[in-house]
Amino acid sequence: MQIGMIGLGRMGANMVRRLLRDGHECVVFDVSQANVEALEQEGAVGATSLEDMVAKLAKPATVWLMLPAAITDQTIEKLSGVMAAGDVLIDGGNSNYQDDIDRAGRLSGIGLDYIDVGTSGGVWGLERGYCLMIGGPDEAVKRLDPIFLSLSPGAGKEAQRTSELGYIHCGPAGSGHFVKMVHNGIEYGMMAAYAEGLNLMKSANIGKVARSADAETSPLANPHYYHYDLDVAEITEVWRHGSVVSSWLLDLLAGSLHNDPTLDAFSGRVSDSGEGRWMMKAGIDTGVPLPVLSSALFQRFSSQGHEQYSNQVLSALRAAFGGHSEKK
Amino acid sequence: MQIGMIGLGRMGANMVRRLLRDGHECVVFDVSQANVEALEQEGAVGATSLEDMVAKLAKPATVWLMLPAAITDQTIEKLSGVMAAGDVLIDGGNSNYQDDIDRAGRLSGIGLDYIDVGTSGGVWGLERGYCLMIGGPDEAVKRLDPIFLSLSPGAGKEAQRTSELGYIHCGPAGSGHFVKMVHNGIEYGMMAAYAEGLNLMKSANIGKVARSADAETSPLANPHYYHYDLDVAEITEVWRHGSVVSSWLLDLLAGSLHNDPTLDAFSGRVSDSGEGRWMMKAGIDTGVPLPVLSSALFQRFSSQGHEQYSNQVLSALRAAFGGHSEKK
Amino acid sequence: MQIGMIGLGRMGANMVRRLLRDGHECVVFDVSQANVEALEQEGAVGATSLEDMVAKLAKPATVWLMLPAAITDQTIEKLSGVMAAGDVLIDGGNSNYQDDIDRAGRLSGIGLDYIDVGTSGGVWGLERGYCLMIGGPDEAVKRLDPIFLSLSPGAGKEAQRTSELGYIHCGPAGSGHFVKMVHNGIEYGMMAAYAEGLNLMKSANIGKVARSADAETSPLANPHYYHYDLDVAEITEVWRHGSVVSSWLLDLLAGSLHNDPTLDAFSGRVSDSGEGRWMMKAGIDTGVPLPVLSSALFQRFSSQGHEQYSNQVLSALRAAFGGHSEKK
Amino acid sequence: MQIGMIGLGRMGANMVRRLLRDGHECVVFDVSQANVEALEQEGAVGATSLEDMVAKLAKPATVWLMLPAAITDQTIEKLSGVMAAGDVLIDGGNSNYQDDIDRAGRLSGIGLDYIDVGTSGGVWGLERGYCLMIGGPDEAVKRLDPIFLSLSPGAGKEAQRTSELGYIHCGPAGSGHFVKMVHNGIEYGMMAAYAEGLNLMKSANIGKVARSADAETSPLANPHYYHYDLDVAEITEVWRHGSVVSSWLLDLLAGSLHNDPTLDAFSGRVSDSGEGRWMMKAGIDTGVPLPVLSSALFQRFSSQGHEQYSNQVLSALRAAFGGHSEKK
Repeated sequence: MQIGMIGLGRMGANMVRRLLRDGHECVVFDVSQANVEALEQEGAVGATSLEDMVAKLAKPATVWLMLPAAITDQTIEKLSGVMAAGDVLIDGGNSNYQDDIDRAGRLSGIGLDYIDVGTSGGVWGLERGYCLMIGGPDEAVKRLDPIFLSLSPGAGKEAQRTSELGYIHCGPAGSGHFVKMVHNGIEYGMMAAYAEGLNLMKSANIGKVARSADAETSPLANPHYYHYDLDVAEITEVWRHGSVVSSWLLDLLAGSLHNDPTLDAFSGRVSDSGEGRWMMKAGIDTGVPLPVLSSALFQRFSSQGHEQYSNQVLSALRAAFGGHSEKK
Repeated sequence: MQIGMIGLGRMGANMVRRLLRDGHECVVFDVSQANVEALEQEGAVGATSLEDMVAKLAKPATVWLMLPAAITDQTIEKLSGVMAAGDVLIDGGNSNYQDDIDRAGRLSGIGLDYIDVGTSGGVWGLERGYCLMIGGPDEAVKRLDPIFLSLSPGAGKEAQRTSELGYIHCGPAGSGHFVKMVHNGIEYGMMAAYAEGLNLMKSANIGKVARSADAETSPLANPHYYHYDLDVAEITEVWRHGSVVSSWLLDLLAGSLHNDPTLDAFSGRVSDSGEGRWMMKAGIDTGVPLPVLSSALFQRFSSQGHEQYSNQVLSALRAAFGGHSEKK
Repeated sequence: MQIGMIGLGRMGANMVRRLLRDGHECVVFDVSQANVEALEQEGAVGATSLEDMVAKLAKPATVWLMLPAAITDQTIEKLSGVMAAGDVLIDGGNSNYQDDIDRAGRLSGIGLDYIDVGTSGGVWGLERGYCLMIGGPDEAVKRLDPIFLSLSPGAGKEAQRTSELGYIHCGPAGSGHFVKMVHNGIEYGMMAAYAEGLNLMKSANIGKVARSADAETSPLANPHYYHYDLDVAEITEVWRHGSVVSSWLLDLLAGSLHNDPTLDAFSGRVSDSGEGRWMMKAGIDTGVPLPVLSSALFQRFSSQGHEQYSNQVLSALRAAFGGHSEKK
Repeated sequence: MQIGMIGLGRMGANMVRRLLRDGHECVVFDVSQANVEALEQEGAVGATSLEDMVAKLAKPATVWLMLPAAITDQTIEKLSGVMAAGDVLIDGGNSNYQDDIDRAGRLSGIGLDYIDVGTSGGVWGLERGYCLMIGGPDEAVKRLDPIFLSLSPGAGKEAQRTSELGYIHCGPAGSGHFVKMVHNGIEYGMMAAYAEGLNLMKSANIGKVARSADAETSPLANPHYYHYDLDVAEITEVWRHGSVVSSWLLDLLAGSLHNDPTLDAFSGRVSDSGEGRWMMKAGIDTGVPLPVLSSALFQRFSSQGHEQYSNQVLSALRAAFGGHSEKK
């Protein structure tokens, strides 16, 4: 099939490569001319502007956006002036699913079909294929099946259900990004589960360490129970083989720790993207308790330094009622 | 090698089968004579008592216990009167690692080597092999390498590190169960991450449902954002293919949901075994924050009904200051 | 001063009473004619409609709304057609502060001043006075100072700062309800702190109770440490006198428990109003970690039964990997 | 009555002062001779050693220990060799209630009565009186009633129940410290509730601040909703008057913030003493969910720097699957 791709960063460029491999015709555009030329070398058709791209696509045209969330809306706005009724616009980035619902409403008013695709697979997608969570109108989604199949891990395979191939039509507008949002929330929780476990193992030797005996340090009741020097890299490796906690994240983690068990290259400041936050809000709206996933999110906020004033308030109170003077 | 196995429940019996397959000689004992006879049919040597088992084992003898935690200590007590210096006693059950440390100290006084083995793999271990986390003295652990290899997923394979085969010597007494404890804590966190995510997806249609408008029901701000009927079974399936959250637990979950997406067979009461509790205490002792894993544990406590009085206190307070009368 | 009050429920009616006591002239309206007549008996001027109320107020008119959140916006819409430039509209209910910001923008366009007042004190406000958190334009807030003073606990007292009298001008539109939102979030956390503590004390005798010894029940390591029959009612009473945790909520709690320590009148289902949810969303927006307050909120969601499917997922997983069959 | 006091730090010395004021005879001992002499000046009888103290007390002797937890056990050991059957030993420090149970068992073997007293009131106890939570044998506790009354806030008052005076006999050995442990856990939760709320208010102006627009910073959806410069000191003051969250802790907090709203004197590192940890373990033992109180405890652990490796693990994973490079 023919498809236009706007946004040739790591994700967009690799998706084009995967589509080209499978024989699709890709018209590509990016604000960076170099990015466009690189993919022209690999068989894509370059476009010099949004208008040029749309002109180069047969009707009905299909355009896939793979852009930072911050500029997706303005690009859709421009495209909606260039594209024609019957065309399809796909947002494969990390949009808030509520924006999808709003956009789909606006675009359907001018005859454009809007599809949202949540994409998982990260930098490994080119090789492994992308897990795709798709929202949008039935007919348009069905028509693009060859594109989704080529991007998915199941490319070249057969199955009764597309879910077994790695892509799925979740429902109407926004449902793809809703499911992706939940996916990322789960990811936060899983990552935190491993992180806390490894942190505890790293502290398993704390009984060997001399401990201050002042009133501001809680005593360690039985130090001889904490005399282990555990090799966390080796332990993550062993868990990959036959344990209940084996996962793809664990595979990656074992690799990272094999390279450097100290993880000293990392400062301890952990970013969060929007999905974790949106999921939490959806839990709040629907009244669904998310204690584990919210803990994972808040832990990241803390790592970013945002618990500082809260802690100062605690110390101020401890000083006020107990005369406690914190250790520095 | 020759080994004695005490405790022929699901785990113990399957381990014997895996050892027999690999050519080891197994002397087996269980309080149920039927369990002993079943394995005799499959090639094991039955024993009629602890004494009989030890008598049937060449010196130095190796005995593996696969017993409920509640009777492990008394069995070790009895065995310590029958076994001789140089023999090895292995606890493959779910003991608290602190008990291991205490036991190892006691048993070394009479010349017995004590090894603790944390075992993961559940009911799938017979087929897939067991992931083994081993604690104990170097020499004894090294001597039993053929046993560990046969039980592990790596049986028949080769690798430079045993971790790649699915077993590992973690350190001195208790370290095997310590690592297994952490493993189970991580398992709690991962399970809860999936559970919360699926719960949210199941509520994604809440905007379609009529909602009471009384003062005790928080209004849903934008119901049209919650109109999705998501197929959670299909979504767990698709995530297995190329997504960041793929894991063995997800494989199992997709299978369970494929069989019955309603999960109506389950009451919602979730048990917890000891490991999650012990891990939390280890976090408390060492000062390592475990917000995600503790949330997962407490969620289970709540599912068991233990938050009832706490909630009644909240309602009593709401009635007292605001005249609120809770809905039933 | 003269003021109009719309909404004569428990809160609105008591505020009118407190204003009348202090010599203010109150024009009152409610959808229930009975509510209007009751206050006419006590000295208020009744109105038969919004229009009638506004007609009865001298210019510039001040109207205070004390309505359920669900009908506040439509009432403001109607009033904005009746009131004139220079008039002041006050929302004393539980609005989302973001709605205040939106409203203030709309109303300033037609010359109306909008003031939001977060009100704490519950059913005790008539007697104790209401703690008022006020947002809105400086001049209008200043002009209404006599009203705020009469409603506050400091009525009749003097102080250098209004905060010492129990009311405060927090900032521009929405800031009053923002601070009230935070106030309620803190309230959730405090309530949960007491509730969890009392729940633990109630379980302090668990070591006396026979315990099933099956594999699905975690054993109690040292039952003799849990043999206390604590009198939680008496303990909440003693904490009121000289302890660090004394508070007004504790005063109320001690009273409730004195009346009925079992709290059997309460089902265990705990409602949540909007503030806790809005606060959590504000924390998410701003990146401020709220682990304690979110735990308190999610605990309420769970009490409402919304963790059910999550728990079923956990049980399904436990059955799948471990063959565990949950207790009912 | 006559009583011996060992340990004349801030708490012990002030308790002696309060007892002297009420006419009791106090024999005092401390490792610091200066501390002893200071109280001799105020009317106490100094002792030069444990033996000397016991010799100076009429039979049956009562000795109150007010010592750091770390040296309490060894002091009790020594005293048990000096005191005689019928004497009473009181631990008023911060012991783990399980240690009380163990001690009481040992001491009763030699005829000594052991009483544990949880004491709340901090540095304000001299002036306000101490809230006392008492565990131990009925008769001994009853005999010491005049001491408890003098120490309590109710000294000089009358009431039907001692709880109204600020002291209470909770039950057998350890129950006093059990209740104090719960008290402190609640205190952690309340403190965290205030701290999180104030932290959010301090961030209410975040929409005014320029924000990086890179992929590693989550965008702020509606900055105009976060334009408030809130005066947290004034807000804590206003809440003291008529609000639902008023408390003694809030009184102290308002004072601290009045002195310095920036709290810059505090580093953000918050110590924890043993009680929060013990309470969490008691919750784990009994299966009582403590999500709020555990969050409060873990927040302190994090403030002490113990989440560092956990965060590094998260960053390592983000780099591995998504090529994310964290901001420093």
